[in-house]
Amino acid sequence: MSEGYQQVEKAILARRERVNEALPEELPVTRPEHLYEATRYLLDAGGKRLRPTVLLLVAESLLDVEPLSVDYRDFPTLTGGQADVLSAALAIEVIQTFTLIHDDIMDDDDLRRGVPAVHKEYDLSTAILAGDTLYSKAFEFLLETGAADDRSVAANKRLAKTCTRICEGQSLDIEFEQRDAVTPDEYLEMVELKTAVLYGAAASIPATLLGADEETVEALYNHGLDVGRAFQIQDDLLDLTTPSEKLGKQRGSDLVENKQTLVTLHARQQGVDVENLVDTDSVDEVSEAEIDEAVATLREAGSIEYARNRAQELVTSGKENLEVLPDNEARDLLDGIANYLVEREY
Amino acid sequence: MSEGYQQVEKAILARRERVNEALPEELPVTRPEHLYEATRYLLDAGGKRLRPTVLLLVAESLLDVEPLSVDYRDFPTLTGGQADVLSAALAIEVIQTFTLIHDDIMDDDDLRRGVPAVHKEYDLSTAILAGDTLYSKAFEFLLETGAADDRSVAANKRLAKTCTRICEGQSLDIEFEQRDAVTPDEYLEMVELKTAVLYGAAASIPATLLGADEETVEALYNHGLDVGRAFQIQDDLLDLTTPSEKLGKQRGSDLVENKQTLVTLHARQQGVDVENLVDTDSVDEVSEAEIDEAVATLREAGSIEYARNRAQELVTSGKENLEVLPDNEARDLLDGIANYLVEREY
Repeated sequence: MSEGYQQVEKAILARRERVNEALPEELPVTRPEHLYEATRYLLDAGGKRLRPTVLLLVAESLLDVEPLSVDYRDFPTLTGGQADVLSAALAIEVIQTFTLIHDDIMDDDDLRRGVPAVHKEYDLSTAILAGDTLYSKAFEFLLETGAADDRSVAANKRLAKTCTRICEGQSLDIEFEQRDAVTPDEYLEMVELKTAVLYGAAASIPATLLGADEETVEALYNHGLDVGRAFQIQDDLLDLTTPSEKLGKQRGSDLVENKQTLVTLHARQQGVDVENLVDTDSVDEVSEAEIDEAVATLREAGSIEYARNRAQELVTSGKENLEVLPDNEARDLLDGIANYLVEREY
Repeated sequence: MSEGYQQVEKAILARRERVNEALPEELPVTRPEHLYEATRYLLDAGGKRLRPTVLLLVAESLLDVEPLSVDYRDFPTLTGGQADVLSAALAIEVIQTFTLIHDDIMDDDDLRRGVPAVHKEYDLSTAILAGDTLYSKAFEFLLETGAADDRSVAANKRLAKTCTRICEGQSLDIEFEQRDAVTPDEYLEMVELKTAVLYGAAASIPATLLGADEETVEALYNHGLDVGRAFQIQDDLLDLTTPSEKLGKQRGSDLVENKQTLVTLHARQQGVDVENLVDTDSVDEVSEAEIDEAVATLREAGSIEYARNRAQELVTSGKENLEVLPDNEARDLLDGIANYLVEREY
């Protein structure tokens, strides 16, 4: 297993390098410099480039080429001609970045990727504008792939619809924070909109651009929805089960902050008094013993197993959806990423 | 002249009605209702729908049809088939609305169209999200016109580029407020980016969608740039020359608030001490006599005439650019709108 993960991590790193090389070319710091520096700030601060990696691997699997052997800028399509799939990968990455910048304003989060959030490093106006600029740049990138026009229209429709859904998901997330009686299914719907649809776009847009049939496109979209939701559930679980030093923040901080997760929403349905699982109000003051006790209660209520099962079901479904792709190395890597998303420990 | 304006105003009103009828169809208040109510709030509060009117009139002139005689949803194109130009008009209007919502946050303005700004009526998060939702909806609308795919790609490229430019313009506007030595040409460049490019998009996108040649598209884009800049200069002039009761706010408020306009930037170049033209700091306390004196100083410096001449030149150029259209009633109305923009008194 650990050897498989090395392959997966190598695959992600190689594609991240391509994405990172393209960023200064496609998003140069030109006039007004202050604005373009702010658009680049969070992109340059890091990020795994997981969604672009998925996009590029789908392209490689679909055309059945040896991974990393073909220029992403001049990628062959199923119907002849070329398309710039790296430009499509950048479109997905800058949409992800725009949503992080605006979400951090809404949540008034101070830090992101280990650096100050854009509205902290710059200011509110610059952060709003940097997000807005990345938003239109994404469409510029996805309209410039050189794919056949009908394919380009379909891919951009998917992107536009995806952005609308992300806004709906963020709106539900804010609404749920002010509400007690959120069900696990409502939570999963919110996660689908806020997080998973962009995975769906990343997995399906290359198929659309390269001329795959409708059935393939939809299976890949569903693959993205599956693994995107699984990823979020795993995030919720890691907060409870991974030691603080591995997690890079206090374990159980979601409990301390009364954040709704699939685990706590399930527990509430089982009659657990979730708000009072942890008495301490501050992540700086909570004890490991207190977290251990809370996690034990959640475990007894079956909530941890419930979340783990939901994540595992989604990954199983996600892997089935990959079967529309030819059986090759790139597909194996996508399969490995799906496993990695729910088996990672931080 | 006043009879001509009645025709122009009638033309705007008729097209505004079509746009307003389409809004609840295309932007229904569905789940999450709170978000979609916020996207509609400013749209429903009013607005002339000037840009959509220009878009629809260009379509009518180009196809040489009698104004209002053809269904905008099923509009003939120059190359056969139909396109939904009303959907394109909505795209432009929702982009305009998104920029107003986000600009009001950045400027912390309380009022817009006589009602509280979205971030005041709702809150910061809802306003950011409402703007973000309208942003993607615009691309959804412009991707759904049913125009030929190559036309659709070209039109959406124009829209994406336009949105990027608007962000650049807003960024320059914020930068200029913190700087003294802004030249009239820099100011006009900022106005071009922040305001005029969306007029350019409104005037050229119908030509792109309906299959006009490149020369026609570019002339119409330039028409939009011309009248968009003229519109902003006229706004600057009206603040100085129109009586407060007609203006709906204190005449000279730009001077009181030390806002940079083409008039004051020209005057500064002429050696006028613009910051101290008006001593009073509050629009509630300034006297008409004080404004009169300041305006007289600006007039003596030639700055009012300078701005008026620049606006007039732009309208003349804008009208020349209209000559790519067939000579018909719709073109006359576009001509009338260009005059109206610089001759209006409020």
